[in-house]
Amino acid sequence: MDDIVIILVQPQLGENIGATARAMKNFGLSELRIVSPRDGWPNEKAESMSVGAVDLIHSAKIFDSLEDAVKDLDFLYATTGERRDMNKDYIISRNLAQDLQQKGRVGILFGREATGLTNTEIAYANKILTINTVPDFSSLNIAHAVCLVCYEIFNNQNILRSDLGNNQKLATSQERAFLHKYLINALDGKGFFKVAEKKEHMSLKIQNILTRIDKLSHSDVQILIGIISSLVK
Amino acid sequence: MDDIVIILVQPQLGENIGATARAMKNFGLSELRIVSPRDGWPNEKAESMSVGAVDLIHSAKIFDSLEDAVKDLDFLYATTGERRDMNKDYIISRNLAQDLQQKGRVGILFGREATGLTNTEIAYANKILTINTVPDFSSLNIAHAVCLVCYEIFNNQNILRSDLGNNQKLATSQERAFLHKYLINALDGKGFFKVAEKKEHMSLKIQNILTRIDKLSHSDVQILIGIISSLVK
Repeated sequence: MDDIVIILVQPQLGENIGATARAMKNFGLSELRIVSPRDGWPNEKAESMSVGAVDLIHSAKIFDSLEDAVKDLDFLYATTGERRDMNKDYIISRNLAQDLQQKGRVGILFGREATGLTNTEIAYANKILTINTVPDFSSLNIAHAVCLVCYEIFNNQNILRSDLGNNQKLATSQERAFLHKYLINALDGKGFFKVAEKKEHMSLKIQNILTRIDKLSHSDVQILIGIISSLVK
Repeated sequence: MDDIVIILVQPQLGENIGATARAMKNFGLSELRIVSPRDGWPNEKAESMSVGAVDLIHSAKIFDSLEDAVKDLDFLYATTGERRDMNKDYIISRNLAQDLQQKGRVGILFGREATGLTNTEIAYANKILTINTVPDFSSLNIAHAVCLVCYEIFNNQNILRSDLGNNQKLATSQERAFLHKYLINALDGKGFFKVAEKKEHMSLKIQNILTRIDKLSHSDVQILIGIISSLVK
């Protein structure tokens, strides 16, 4: 998690900066950057609200411009409440950990409390990150948004680590597709699809089940192929 | 989500009550109960911190005792930071939505900021709910804890709704166990486990893959059993 930097852009309230630091530390993140905090720096309220995470407040780096704050980073996400009409890839928080893989040093931008990030700021990012909420009450407290993102990252650390061991590499979409096709062919050979018209529907159902295997790895695919080829013997 | 009630037990800061209401509304929960708020009720800081969720603050019900606050509920979770040595089932937040099914009217308890819930209060609950954090910094801001729990519930609404359609019923642990055993037996019959010493290890790996199928339903299990029985023909 040392490669993930949380960046607050012009946060207004010290309390929110403090609560952000606490949430980061709860979930093992440690690098906080702040672009032009409204009430200056250092900020007493940020210190007191951070409780035991005051070390993150003391080591936070302050920047005058977003450009300076992100120039050493390899990949940037911009967090927005509602989807904006910009020509940029979107990802929801639930899928963040998986998406983070092999991105190098990553920054995640959070905008000011009242107005979020401007379109100019979002333009710096490679992708937009959204947190799904009820549509008519989508404005999250900024520290809550940081907390949810850090929680997602922490709860999927094994995904993040999985590119270390070769066997633990996540399956590619090609491997998943191959597995599905291999299974359908085996079933075809055994006359599983008795009613031709239902084949497509059942094939989709099977694909749907396979898709729902969380963190399917390269070696999982090999095991499943081995199982299928053994069963048809 | 109308069946899920958030219950704060002796919260100390109005700000946290307000932030709790806002997080609940972000994720579609609406019923807030408060047992003996330290600073009395109504609380101005709770109102101002709730921003657009002041309706939840106004409709919050205040109780003098935990017993009164929970007596109409069918099932109760007690949220704790660290696992406690109590004779009670545990669940992590990630698995909450699945666990909530068919529980009727559910209450989720959150303790006071400084000290959490007492063991006597936890004793009221049917299960303990924990949020995984880094071990040496596990104390979450109370509104953050509520926010994470509401986020988990909201992001798994389809799980919660899935007990409506009969075919969509989630598989029970017995059904999952039966599926695993059925597959292992089929593989045994085909001589899949060539090296006897490795059978247990491989069987565990297979179980692990099956466990990771998200939202495995009763009908998914039937499909998979059908696939296995067809392949061995």
